Amino acid sequence: MTAVRAAVMVGPGKPIELREFPEPELEVGAALLRTLASEVCGTDVHLWHGRLPEVPFPIIPGHTNVGALEKLRGEILDLEGEPFREGDLVTFLDVHETCGRCWYCLVAKATTRCPHRKVYGITYSAREGLLGGWSENIYLKPGVKLLRLPAGLTAEAFIAGGCGLPTAVHALERAGLLPGDTVAVQGSGPVGLWATALAHRGGAAQVITLGAPEARLAVARRLGASATIDITGLGSAERVEAVRERTGGRGADVTIEATGAAEAVLEGLRMTRDAGRYVIVGQYTDGGAVSLNPHYDLNRKHIEVRAVWGIDFSHLYRAVQLLARWAPELPLAEILTRRYRLGEAEQALRDVEDLRVVKAVLEPNVR
Amino acid sequence: MTAVRAAVMVGPGKPIELREFPEPELEVGAALLRTLASEVCGTDVHLWHGRLPEVPFPIIPGHTNVGALEKLRGEILDLEGEPFREGDLVTFLDVHETCGRCWYCLVAKATTRCPHRKVYGITYSAREGLLGGWSENIYLKPGVKLLRLPAGLTAEAFIAGGCGLPTAVHALERAGLLPGDTVAVQGSGPVGLWATALAHRGGAAQVITLGAPEARLAVARRLGASATIDITGLGSAERVEAVRERTGGRGADVTIEATGAAEAVLEGLRMTRDAGRYVIVGQYTDGGAVSLNPHYDLNRKHIEVRAVWGIDFSHLYRAVQLLARWAPELPLAEILTRRYRLGEAEQALRDVEDLRVVKAVLEPNVR
Amino acid sequence: MTAVRAAVMVGPGKPIELREFPEPELEVGAALLRTLASEVCGTDVHLWHGRLPEVPFPIIPGHTNVGALEKLRGEILDLEGEPFREGDLVTFLDVHETCGRCWYCLVAKATTRCPHRKVYGITYSAREGLLGGWSENIYLKPGVKLLRLPAGLTAEAFIAGGCGLPTAVHALERAGLLPGDTVAVQGSGPVGLWATALAHRGGAAQVITLGAPEARLAVARRLGASATIDITGLGSAERVEAVRERTGGRGADVTIEATGAAEAVLEGLRMTRDAGRYVIVGQYTDGGAVSLNPHYDLNRKHIEVRAVWGIDFSHLYRAVQLLARWAPELPLAEILTRRYRLGEAEQALRDVEDLRVVKAVLEPNVR
Amino acid sequence: MTAVRAAVMVGPGKPIELREFPEPELEVGAALLRTLASEVCGTDVHLWHGRLPEVPFPIIPGHTNVGALEKLRGEILDLEGEPFREGDLVTFLDVHETCGRCWYCLVAKATTRCPHRKVYGITYSAREGLLGGWSENIYLKPGVKLLRLPAGLTAEAFIAGGCGLPTAVHALERAGLLPGDTVAVQGSGPVGLWATALAHRGGAAQVITLGAPEARLAVARRLGASATIDITGLGSAERVEAVRERTGGRGADVTIEATGAAEAVLEGLRMTRDAGRYVIVGQYTDGGAVSLNPHYDLNRKHIEVRAVWGIDFSHLYRAVQLLARWAPELPLAEILTRRYRLGEAEQALRDVEDLRVVKAVLEPNVR
Repeated sequence: MTAVRAAVMVGPGKPIELREFPEPELEVGAALLRTLASEVCGTDVHLWHGRLPEVPFPIIPGHTNVGALEKLRGEILDLEGEPFREGDLVTFLDVHETCGRCWYCLVAKATTRCPHRKVYGITYSAREGLLGGWSENIYLKPGVKLLRLPAGLTAEAFIAGGCGLPTAVHALERAGLLPGDTVAVQGSGPVGLWATALAHRGGAAQVITLGAPEARLAVARRLGASATIDITGLGSAERVEAVRERTGGRGADVTIEATGAAEAVLEGLRMTRDAGRYVIVGQYTDGGAVSLNPHYDLNRKHIEVRAVWGIDFSHLYRAVQLLARWAPELPLAEILTRRYRLGEAEQALRDVEDLRVVKAVLEPNVR
Repeated sequence: MTAVRAAVMVGPGKPIELREFPEPELEVGAALLRTLASEVCGTDVHLWHGRLPEVPFPIIPGHTNVGALEKLRGEILDLEGEPFREGDLVTFLDVHETCGRCWYCLVAKATTRCPHRKVYGITYSAREGLLGGWSENIYLKPGVKLLRLPAGLTAEAFIAGGCGLPTAVHALERAGLLPGDTVAVQGSGPVGLWATALAHRGGAAQVITLGAPEARLAVARRLGASATIDITGLGSAERVEAVRERTGGRGADVTIEATGAAEAVLEGLRMTRDAGRYVIVGQYTDGGAVSLNPHYDLNRKHIEVRAVWGIDFSHLYRAVQLLARWAPELPLAEILTRRYRLGEAEQALRDVEDLRVVKAVLEPNVR
Repeated sequence: MTAVRAAVMVGPGKPIELREFPEPELEVGAALLRTLASEVCGTDVHLWHGRLPEVPFPIIPGHTNVGALEKLRGEILDLEGEPFREGDLVTFLDVHETCGRCWYCLVAKATTRCPHRKVYGITYSAREGLLGGWSENIYLKPGVKLLRLPAGLTAEAFIAGGCGLPTAVHALERAGLLPGDTVAVQGSGPVGLWATALAHRGGAAQVITLGAPEARLAVARRLGASATIDITGLGSAERVEAVRERTGGRGADVTIEATGAAEAVLEGLRMTRDAGRYVIVGQYTDGGAVSLNPHYDLNRKHIEVRAVWGIDFSHLYRAVQLLARWAPELPLAEILTRRYRLGEAEQALRDVEDLRVVKAVLEPNVR
Repeated sequence: MTAVRAAVMVGPGKPIELREFPEPELEVGAALLRTLASEVCGTDVHLWHGRLPEVPFPIIPGHTNVGALEKLRGEILDLEGEPFREGDLVTFLDVHETCGRCWYCLVAKATTRCPHRKVYGITYSAREGLLGGWSENIYLKPGVKLLRLPAGLTAEAFIAGGCGLPTAVHALERAGLLPGDTVAVQGSGPVGLWATALAHRGGAAQVITLGAPEARLAVARRLGASATIDITGLGSAERVEAVRERTGGRGADVTIEATGAAEAVLEGLRMTRDAGRYVIVGQYTDGGAVSLNPHYDLNRKHIEVRAVWGIDFSHLYRAVQLLARWAPELPLAEILTRRYRLGEAEQALRDVEDLRVVKAVLEPNVR
């Protein structure tokens, strides 16, 4: 029996460990993926610092993954009813066990709020199996939703989109852009950058991206930002003013929050025009409270605030179709900044945390 | 020349004065209304206490009015292209001078945010004319949007709807109720009561109204609340819990805020289910700040917040159609609690402020 | 082993036969329902006349059912996570085997267009089991979506809603009524009647129902129609005119088609105002073609046409919540016109076909 | 007094005549435009062939125009409240006299259906003044909605957008594209080409344009079509099949009709997937009837049909913002195929009719 190597996060603040696991036997309907690439993202840094509740350490991180099917047990069909075969290049939705039977799934149709959902690389313990992507193999449980990469879309290109792109797809879906809208994007991490690209290629006439450092803003401009605002050294009122002066003094039609900082919410409301839309997607962890004035910041503005939690399969699917179409024109190499081997996972975490890279990718099978 | 008597608010905190004005000459396209009834509402109390900015005292208050056309100069057409005639029973949209030419009017189509709009009874000075309803006559400037009361709708029934009903119509329009939704309404003032009625008669399967005192909650139940929660003596967490225990622990599908208290916003978010909608309509004046946690209260809830400012003509029109249909079944007498003569305007203000009445109406031509 | 009696439709145009089936053994996750009431509706008449394609005769009809759980194997949880128990009063969604894995389920989120879905009483053969409601017992396969009747909602009241009510809920959900809209309803069968009730109790200021015979129109008025138009002897232009003269010459804001007649579509477009919404829900079987002029009937009208296929669990759930709330005020006895025993199924079909009843109900366990 | 030369369409089928008009005196609030460019479009061909009802011949055609302000009387403010000055480069909304007071304007907020609206170049007679663009000067009546061209947008670039671009903006606004949608566009005239560009730059992952001749399809590909289908020699079923084979057999998520041929509507419904959206914008004149089956083509498909009539100022504004942003990357020279002098208006009409040009532009002040 072969051993499978994985990078394991054993607990908050502890060193990442390389461990070996036995190769799992497959249940009917399960498959084994040979991991080609697994993203190291800001969520992993949050995990490492213990900022997410109820994480069942030790875990194998890695929630956005791409690989080749190595083994399958039983027939597994794709979206079109075609069976998957060994060797197929696929990704999969990290969210699993959405129940399909509870009030949120059936009545609200808000599946990203199903209380039963589990997430590969986040809410499964390493004791439960190879359920994260920082591993040579990933165990795809029966019912995990696989997606073929379209012809011409490479694993590298896919991982440059990573989890930021489908998240941004969900945000833009909620934003309801009209042709010619002006969009402000708060944040220049992966979600902010992809929101910038999607707004530009989604019919906006103007996209203003606020963030730092300058290297990321340069990527934002290449992805379609018509203006970028380096927030370094600017106060909140100055940032708001910087957007307003580019929008006739009114603010953006649509603002998309992708920062993770609680105070950004007040700032974002203020940089949005009256009767505009404010999409909140970056408050993924508890970043504390913010104080706002409901009269001035909400009611009198006649604004809509649309919060976005998680993604479902449609967002992953749409992200992949868009990447396949746009990849030749996108500066993907500037996004997917650096590749790491399994033993370098901790270095990757540090580089992400210190913003030394836009996006870090682990390649577990590269030695 | 006849004198026209009006009740004048000369400044914040000062006694209401009865003054006489000369009967105005009509411009072409203008009309003179003989006032049958003018509402005294919470906004008037705010005005009196100086809580609204830039009010050009002295003013003739009264923004929701009904009367009979006494004189017209030139042809004025109704919605259907029929000319108005002397004696016609009409109301009119208090908002005037919405410009129809600015960015908000033409591009955003958010006419309630047009910076040029003026409001009868609020933003016109008594020096500019009879531009408020606490007066025997109201001067209807050219272009003021008049609306006939449909056959069978009395002035009394109209004023029982008052400004609360079209405001609630706007709120419900934004709420996008689905058949069978559960609705929580925060507040039992006129807007909250009418939101209760509109939710119940707008397809909700359950309407939970929170407010006080009990007399108003009794009206809420007659208007369709399936449950009422007396907030007297309850803490915020208890109010939230009271809604949750009636909604499977999840909260309402839609919550409508109609309180004017800043803290109500946090409470309202928490009494709304994940992926629900929160409509904010009651934060009409600056009621201070509220602190909330963007992660727990917004992002993770996947909630939509829809703020509602003002009304346009369509809301007034819809309100009037509904009242004409529903009036026979509604407990209008319990809403339109008390009538006042012109000289009793100050008493009316005090009664509204102290919640001694649900709705107060001035009848300027009753001696 | 006990025998279970069921009324079987053996083929188009053939007599309904009473047959006996062995009581089935339960798979894990399955349950057996003792049928209290099963609807006999227009769809069953269509089935009997061979108007639906690919029906696997012989079948046990009956797609809308209510009963008491007689046996369960394994734990079956309700929406709230509570286990069902023997004796519980439940209904269930007739649609089953919606796959949850195909493009329509996952990307379009249009589950009523999942190609894998099956329907109790319609697409299952009697050879596959007790999979229709015209039977003393119904076999509830694992995964069938059960719904408890809320306290106070009787089986009789539920079946008065039948399949027409959740279908009308779906239609009204698509209609997007605004408070004060005028609604025209084409048809006075169960869907048309329930659409009338939902429009009236969904915020419409005026509901105009077109249909026949007069007995059904009388029910429509009791359910909230402000006007009814007996189509007997009226030509298409006269019907359109009858709606226009009640709507300022413009037509209804929203028209809901619930007729099954192809020509009704042209008529419905013409009785809808410009920039209105036309909801098509009644074209359940192939009723032939209709000719229309895209310039006059669509483009120049700036109209939206929203077609509605089937229902999902949310529509059944919403229907049940509304019935529980409204039942005391609704003339349910006038809708649920007549009860039949199992041996009278054919008579029930004839009565439905000849419009002798509004709604017919089979009670398989009444002898 | 100077004479103003204009090309006049004196009646259906009659030669275009060059006539001289006196330079008009300006009312307060009016302005005189020196015409730089005026579009010759398919609508003008329809006018010439008498296919539009109630045209008050003789008329000065030309509804999409750009020029320099030559004279103003009184202050005219732009969207931002800044006064226009002589020499400013502007366009204007051809639609004028939208009343702002009727039921359609105020209640339905469907201003493109206001019965009072008039259109420069179409519904004004030459007897009423210089109210069309095929003239050295255009008389801009008080209240005509002017729009400055943004810095960097030339008159040529604007006219390459012409009336097709804002019409396509309106169509795309109604389409409600989600990121990653597949869009089919029926037609390769100016509206179809611009719909192609807007879909591609509006977040579509795939755009399939159907039309002819090949020269226009080549432009479609340069504007973003991922595939084009030359309809020459293909039957309707083959066109539908051509779209389906590129969309997993299902059809497009969104189809946009821009053909003017009645039969295209049936074809378009069939090339759209179930639960998709079908936008009809090209049925501008009476092109006869089409026969469709409401069961198969509408109800069972669970489709939405959204018809689009005319444009309002927001669409013109959005079009201009987008052109200003995109112009450097667009093949505008391939769209704006040929320029004509005033005396060549008839030749321009023939070239448009015979598809010898994509877009023809008159330059009335070029001699």
